[in-house]
Amino acid sequence: MKIIEKGDITLVRGIKASGINCGIKQSRKDIALIFSRIPATAAGVFTQNYIIAAPVLVTKEHLHNHMAQAIIANSGIANAATGQKGIEDARQMASLVAASLNILPSNVIVASTGKIGEYLPMENIASGIPRAVASLSEEGGESAAEAILTTDTCSKRIAVQFDIEGATITIAGIAKGAGMIRPNMATMLSFILTDALIDGNYLQEALFNAADRTFNRITVDGDTSTNDMVIVLANGLSGGSAIVPKSKGMERFKNGLEYICHRLALMIVNDGEGATKAICVTVKGAGTEIEAKKVAFRIAESLLVKTSLYGGDCNWGRILAAAGSSGVEIDPQKIDISYGPVQVVKGGIGLGDEQCKRAVSYLASKEIEIVVDLNIADKGSFVWTTDLSPEYVHLNADYIT
Amino acid sequence: MKIIEKGDITLVRGIKASGINCGIKQSRKDIALIFSRIPATAAGVFTQNYIIAAPVLVTKEHLHNHMAQAIIANSGIANAATGQKGIEDARQMASLVAASLNILPSNVIVASTGKIGEYLPMENIASGIPRAVASLSEEGGESAAEAILTTDTCSKRIAVQFDIEGATITIAGIAKGAGMIRPNMATMLSFILTDALIDGNYLQEALFNAADRTFNRITVDGDTSTNDMVIVLANGLSGGSAIVPKSKGMERFKNGLEYICHRLALMIVNDGEGATKAICVTVKGAGTEIEAKKVAFRIAESLLVKTSLYGGDCNWGRILAAAGSSGVEIDPQKIDISYGPVQVVKGGIGLGDEQCKRAVSYLASKEIEIVVDLNIADKGSFVWTTDLSPEYVHLNADYIT
Repeated sequence: MKIIEKGDITLVRGIKASGINCGIKQSRKDIALIFSRIPATAAGVFTQNYIIAAPVLVTKEHLHNHMAQAIIANSGIANAATGQKGIEDARQMASLVAASLNILPSNVIVASTGKIGEYLPMENIASGIPRAVASLSEEGGESAAEAILTTDTCSKRIAVQFDIEGATITIAGIAKGAGMIRPNMATMLSFILTDALIDGNYLQEALFNAADRTFNRITVDGDTSTNDMVIVLANGLSGGSAIVPKSKGMERFKNGLEYICHRLALMIVNDGEGATKAICVTVKGAGTEIEAKKVAFRIAESLLVKTSLYGGDCNWGRILAAAGSSGVEIDPQKIDISYGPVQVVKGGIGLGDEQCKRAVSYLASKEIEIVVDLNIADKGSFVWTTDLSPEYVHLNADYIT
Repeated sequence: MKIIEKGDITLVRGIKASGINCGIKQSRKDIALIFSRIPATAAGVFTQNYIIAAPVLVTKEHLHNHMAQAIIANSGIANAATGQKGIEDARQMASLVAASLNILPSNVIVASTGKIGEYLPMENIASGIPRAVASLSEEGGESAAEAILTTDTCSKRIAVQFDIEGATITIAGIAKGAGMIRPNMATMLSFILTDALIDGNYLQEALFNAADRTFNRITVDGDTSTNDMVIVLANGLSGGSAIVPKSKGMERFKNGLEYICHRLALMIVNDGEGATKAICVTVKGAGTEIEAKKVAFRIAESLLVKTSLYGGDCNWGRILAAAGSSGVEIDPQKIDISYGPVQVVKGGIGLGDEQCKRAVSYLASKEIEIVVDLNIADKGSFVWTTDLSPEYVHLNADYIT
């Protein structure tokens, strides 16, 4: 598999993109448009929040037949908590794109990210969409990646290419960050494009599995947004034959898709608000995978653990206390804890100052692994998170509406 | 009911106390001793963490018969994650107190708070306990309140007095803070004394109910300690007759006990690490009390909500998003949200800038109420928390072992 760092979505055959400013934000790009020359199979995973933004509701409807041809996304306003008018506005966005591109409105994916509780300025959007359509090009991938950003410090994009039976398949994706930092700012969006030929139901299954091991394993501040959405479009223009279940091709495709999701998820973590370190918490030796995940999330979301990692401190007591408070029954006398290669706790008891000194050296790194072995059975799980810095609080508090 | 601000536990008939330094900490008091002239009925509530510190294990054993006569507590080291030796050390503390006071070891409550993973310096403790016994006095309440503190900025004590059938009953309590700020620093302790005459089982029930509505409703950083403990001793020396269920006296006693717990819990919140505001989150209109509590805790522990409250921002979108992500099924179109007297959301939709301006004025206060009405049914709950300040992160990260 060839990895193309900062590879644009327009590397995918038949994909054009654009990113423009329509006036939702002051001057930065705020509308992204992605267009496939022919209708593509499509799949999506969405926020689990009970408060669901209007564009998510409309996109779920449009994805019902697992087909799509265009993605329209705006940043700056989330179109969430906007009632019936919000839904009408989201439908209107799809209709405007469809009319401009001469495609079916139901084949348009709609996404928004930004402030909750404000209505979209539909006049700006109505005049912006034809401009976005006019700007579509095979060089527009980077502009689209920029137009979906809110408080991210950099755009997030990655592509891979691999062969299946002689045909070169490209998968490329863009994303925006998971941290919610400005008031009412919504969270993660990712759009993935591929020229593979694959049935919509198989695509949905592949995306579900990939997202579960990547996007669903990152937590910056534990909050789930009203607008989260990961979408994949497969237009089949690679020229290869259809990818079918249990084939070598399917295996490669799934690997490629998961790699894209993994890299985009890590970019989100690394760009987390005020984050200085990326942290992978692995829990092993649990009775079930669900229990392992529960313990891992409890540790990853503990403010005390996150602040101690910011401080670079060998503070296994906080990890132990967090593990014990997840609700999962554990045996304190069996727990082992390591920071990367440095074990600091064996059987629930600390291994002393020498090991802690070694751990402190390790904790100076930018990417940190914490391994907790419950030693109860053999199930495991993991989650990626960030440390918690004073900068996070500043970013999230200092904005006054 | 007469409320005695900063009332000492030694206001309770037959109670003496002391607080001394035995060298666990550099110079601040680190051993508190509380002694009842006669054996008292006793009750306790304990940490729900699966990692339980040695003193908690020993105290649970000693409370089995609902009797106790003394409380020994040290600060600086938690005696947690210390294995069998930790348990022997905790037993030794009880034995030393018992020998010095000539009482039963099983009538001694043992508590510790401080660093996890270190052993107690038993020589210091063995020489300190006789000094603590020698220092016992009716003026020692404040010293005991100071000796249990770790990173608290002030001691926490309160007393009440009320009459039952002509006899004056005193209830007085001390506490240490809930925030865990130094590495491996453990958390909440509270010791409550009364001269009421009440059966141990009734006392347990009264404490359980009071703690559930007070200590169990506060969250500073969402972490549960290995050492949490609330103990109440009732020595019956008021001279009044026994308090029995369903009597007016029992009602007064329960009110008094809950008031003490409520005030101590609020003192803990107000002294929360880097906290600038105390926040009460009330959730109404839920299907069950458990669901209401779940939503309230989700809001109270949301970093985004906590930082927005630090910033004094009218950021109801974050409250809405947190409410939606608690796992409790809610109807977005039914939610109402108010900041104190200022309603900002009706039926899931914002009430506009004017209301937000009013809310911002309200949010400048030191004590803030957030009311979320789910408008599904009629069950409710509440939780107290703090805002999240950059100071919290500094306090928790800047300490290097």
